[in-house]
Amino acid sequence: MRNEFEFIRNIKDKYGLSRVGDDCAVLPKDVRKDLVITADLLVEDIDFRLEWTRPEHLGHKALAVSLSDVAAMGGTPEWAMLSIGIPEHLWKGQFVDKFYEGWFELAKLHGVELVGGDVSRTPDKMVIDSIVAGEVIRGTAIMRNGARPGDSIFVTGSLGGAAAGLDHLESGRQFSKSRGRVRETMLRQLFPTPRIEIGKYLAMKNLATSMIDISDGLNADLHHLCESSDVGARIYADLVPVDKNIFGFPADQILRFALASGEDFELLFTSKSKKLSSIKSTQITRIGEITSNIGIVELASREKTIRLPRFGYRHF
Amino acid sequence: MRNEFEFIRNIKDKYGLSRVGDDCAVLPKDVRKDLVITADLLVEDIDFRLEWTRPEHLGHKALAVSLSDVAAMGGTPEWAMLSIGIPEHLWKGQFVDKFYEGWFELAKLHGVELVGGDVSRTPDKMVIDSIVAGEVIRGTAIMRNGARPGDSIFVTGSLGGAAAGLDHLESGRQFSKSRGRVRETMLRQLFPTPRIEIGKYLAMKNLATSMIDISDGLNADLHHLCESSDVGARIYADLVPVDKNIFGFPADQILRFALASGEDFELLFTSKSKKLSSIKSTQITRIGEITSNIGIVELASREKTIRLPRFGYRHF
Repeated sequence: MRNEFEFIRNIKDKYGLSRVGDDCAVLPKDVRKDLVITADLLVEDIDFRLEWTRPEHLGHKALAVSLSDVAAMGGTPEWAMLSIGIPEHLWKGQFVDKFYEGWFELAKLHGVELVGGDVSRTPDKMVIDSIVAGEVIRGTAIMRNGARPGDSIFVTGSLGGAAAGLDHLESGRQFSKSRGRVRETMLRQLFPTPRIEIGKYLAMKNLATSMIDISDGLNADLHHLCESSDVGARIYADLVPVDKNIFGFPADQILRFALASGEDFELLFTSKSKKLSSIKSTQITRIGEITSNIGIVELASREKTIRLPRFGYRHF
Repeated sequence: MRNEFEFIRNIKDKYGLSRVGDDCAVLPKDVRKDLVITADLLVEDIDFRLEWTRPEHLGHKALAVSLSDVAAMGGTPEWAMLSIGIPEHLWKGQFVDKFYEGWFELAKLHGVELVGGDVSRTPDKMVIDSIVAGEVIRGTAIMRNGARPGDSIFVTGSLGGAAAGLDHLESGRQFSKSRGRVRETMLRQLFPTPRIEIGKYLAMKNLATSMIDISDGLNADLHHLCESSDVGARIYADLVPVDKNIFGFPADQILRFALASGEDFELLFTSKSKKLSSIKSTQITRIGEITSNIGIVELASREKTIRLPRFGYRHF
């Protein structure tokens, strides 16, 4: 069965859609600016579980995932639309009010104005479509297709925390009763931070040749970036910045969290520079380099170099 | 229980959202143009039934409902995003391909480019969020709030057909076996025509003081328009242009279809002019006038004048 990436590529080719396939579409706005815009659909029991999350955290996350796409273009978020489908049992209580409270708290932080959207009833499951638009100086949006052999590969922050948090939730631990490092990893899953400031900084300083946000996992998103750029990549296991709050798992499991699991919403980018300093207290780590082996992502460790299979989170 | 209109009004007041509450949000684009943008969420078994519709008709309708919102601002549609949530049983077959075929056929007709969106799996029901953006000459978007006492009220085309079509479908008649006038009303429900050309014409000629599309029904949408404009309205039962393909229903039922049922996707607008000629073969009919009775919509017939209750389709 085709997966959604194949499906989208097929639609893109069949109908000649030149703006589809990056974190955001880039559209000319005026003589100085481009508009960048993204939509993210979140479905109950596929993308989130109501028994794991607070409504205000879910509102935050719905906006955060789209802000992360704007960050991945180097954009400054400006306005948003929010479409929600709600079953009657949630509509009756305070759920929706708290959901919007969480949404607006993050929106205020980034100066994002809600300009529209839709509210509908659903038979039983909640669904959210989050649309966020931002701006970049004309021609400076950082696309997925600009990586060249020899570029260094960087990631912001640390990886694997969201996956460890999800593992804790799936094993039945409750967020409300959690504390310390377990709670921190659950927050990575439930309450992600979009890397807006770093994305803007990289665009302003023209430091990145390509960028993508890590929503499907480092390996999957590095594959996406390499395929868009017609290049390959080699990353070093020792250099991957693993979330320090992950504990109680074997080492190979921790590396798997960091490589193969999504939702950390860090930025993955390439640069001609070999060294970049951390920005505004967010670390930036060089994890490898771009190669000319088109579509091939290698993982080098002290013992050996292996080719990583092309996988990651897929809906189908 | 609050309905969704009260909920949206509450959110709008609480968070000071000045751009929410019209058919589209209007945002400054460049020195000459404004951007108008809308999102419409369509949920299986709430907004459509898969056993009644062909996938290509559903794709058409998903785009048409949002194009209708752009038409209601006097806008020229430019680009769109489409988020779809699909259950696995639909993903496996040709459903999604045919859905996109219907979408693209209408998009091509109006020169609309698909620039983004999302594809997700759902547990069992299909959901669609349709986002369409258009442009207007700066400051010329036709809002809901410009109607003034003495203005004439007009509607495009004819009303009630979509409701009659829905009635036929609900009573078990199949579209594939229908013909003649029954089929025509079913097409009004399943395959609506957005009134883009008339909307653009009214904006270009500065003929309309306010406008809304008829998605919730003439009565409900006239109430929305009157509330936005702080005015009232009187319409004449004899003047309401009833769809000539409706037959086999009693007269009061036909008038109820035309007044109280939605989804005809005609345009309802007000004008200083008392007489407007039909445009490009689409009729334009004067049905009444704006009054100073704030929020009150009256229906005058030969026998009497009654106040119409404020109702229409509501999700909650």
